Amino acid sequence: MAYQLHYWPGIQGRGEFVRLALEAAGAPYLDVARGDEEQGAGVPAMMRVLQGNDVTRPPFACPFLIDGKVIVGQTAAILLYLGPRLKLVPAGEADRLWAHQVQLTLADLVVEAHDTHHPVGSGLYYEEQKKEALRRAEDFRRNRLPKFLGWCETILERNTGNAEREVPRLVGGRLTYADLSLFQVVEGLLYAFPKATRRVLRKTPLVARLHAGVPRHKRLAAYLVSARRVPFNEQGIFRRYPELDG
Amino acid sequence: MAYQLHYWPGIQGRGEFVRLALEAAGAPYLDVARGDEEQGAGVPAMMRVLQGNDVTRPPFACPFLIDGKVIVGQTAAILLYLGPRLKLVPAGEADRLWAHQVQLTLADLVVEAHDTHHPVGSGLYYEEQKKEALRRAEDFRRNRLPKFLGWCETILERNTGNAEREVPRLVGGRLTYADLSLFQVVEGLLYAFPKATRRVLRKTPLVARLHAGVPRHKRLAAYLVSARRVPFNEQGIFRRYPELDG
Repeated sequence: MAYQLHYWPGIQGRGEFVRLALEAAGAPYLDVARGDEEQGAGVPAMMRVLQGNDVTRPPFACPFLIDGKVIVGQTAAILLYLGPRLKLVPAGEADRLWAHQVQLTLADLVVEAHDTHHPVGSGLYYEEQKKEALRRAEDFRRNRLPKFLGWCETILERNTGNAEREVPRLVGGRLTYADLSLFQVVEGLLYAFPKATRRVLRKTPLVARLHAGVPRHKRLAAYLVSARRVPFNEQGIFRRYPELDG
Repeated sequence: MAYQLHYWPGIQGRGEFVRLALEAAGAPYLDVARGDEEQGAGVPAMMRVLQGNDVTRPPFACPFLIDGKVIVGQTAAILLYLGPRLKLVPAGEADRLWAHQVQLTLADLVVEAHDTHHPVGSGLYYEEQKKEALRRAEDFRRNRLPKFLGWCETILERNTGNAEREVPRLVGGRLTYADLSLFQVVEGLLYAFPKATRRVLRKTPLVARLHAGVPRHKRLAAYLVSARRVPFNEQGIFRRYPELDG
């Protein structure tokens, strides 16, 4: 049975980390909230899970995945669940835990990237918190972005065999969902903060190589130019507000 | 061999979620950074793992746990690892994933609680971002806090058997690390936002009962009055700045 991915249509957002894993693996899935309401899909189908009274373990928010009777929310937990099933993590517990740890750290970076344009509240418009956003974005560009990508560079350096690999890997020698997520984060950062991100990438060459290499994966290459890939825009996590790029 | 917990001394912070699990289980552990520098412990011992060149998989930040050759960072990942070993989660994959999902959602709440006093940057003092903090805290009290604790109430309501239990449980019928973490979050919220939190707890009676019940656990009761429990203070995640409590 196909996996059901539930996430807001119209933005890549956190759903994209799950989508990339499903696409890279060539797994059958339904992107439910982007489907047809008249056929029982669409946003109402997603809201029935989040708000319905009959769901024993409702996720706090989307994205969430439905696989038969299992409902999993929280992006990193979804990937923890999918990783072995999609063969996007090695077999051992230590490696899987490490991939998950990397994913959770990238998730922290995603929160901070989001909060550059929403430092006061996610329910308010950007225009209502622009002044605060300017300050937060400066701290993000100067301190947080280099720190996060610097850590990624360090762990890429220390992963045996990366020096010889054309495309370095975060965990072991094969593609994992953590690589896909780092690709997506860098892609988003280049969209939102092109100047600041390029500056950091010059100092993190392995991160840059991973980012450049991941989309050469055959299935991902096809996905990235397809209509299934939502373009970046100013409703998602990564938004291009030039004033926030310093 | 005793577990090694590495976390900043002087604050409860994110280390406390791990500490509560270890204490509840009566597991032997060393609180390394609070140990004696002359005996090879203390903050330098922690920094050697975070910044040393010889650690293959360095965590991005503390807390992290060392168990023999395994190093695990990210609070929720540490608890994912410890849960089965400390018998603080049920046996099945679905239950463990659910406990983890709850933990990750509580971690999101913790970030938002922290950001009420640091909406601009974690490297700046509160006094440098007080104006922004006042706005962010208002949004937190009005919207986010009720939403998060409301979700906890819902999942407590839907966990079979809680109506009959004196102390409700988040996952299954026995104490899990998720219960300990919700206790800790409520404890912190009551410290930082006593007025706003009491208002919300009046509408989330199961959360209130869980919070009141957890510290009756024998080992936890002893721990909570011991010197091992760092008091709340204004350097941690939960800080009492009365102006942020509205």
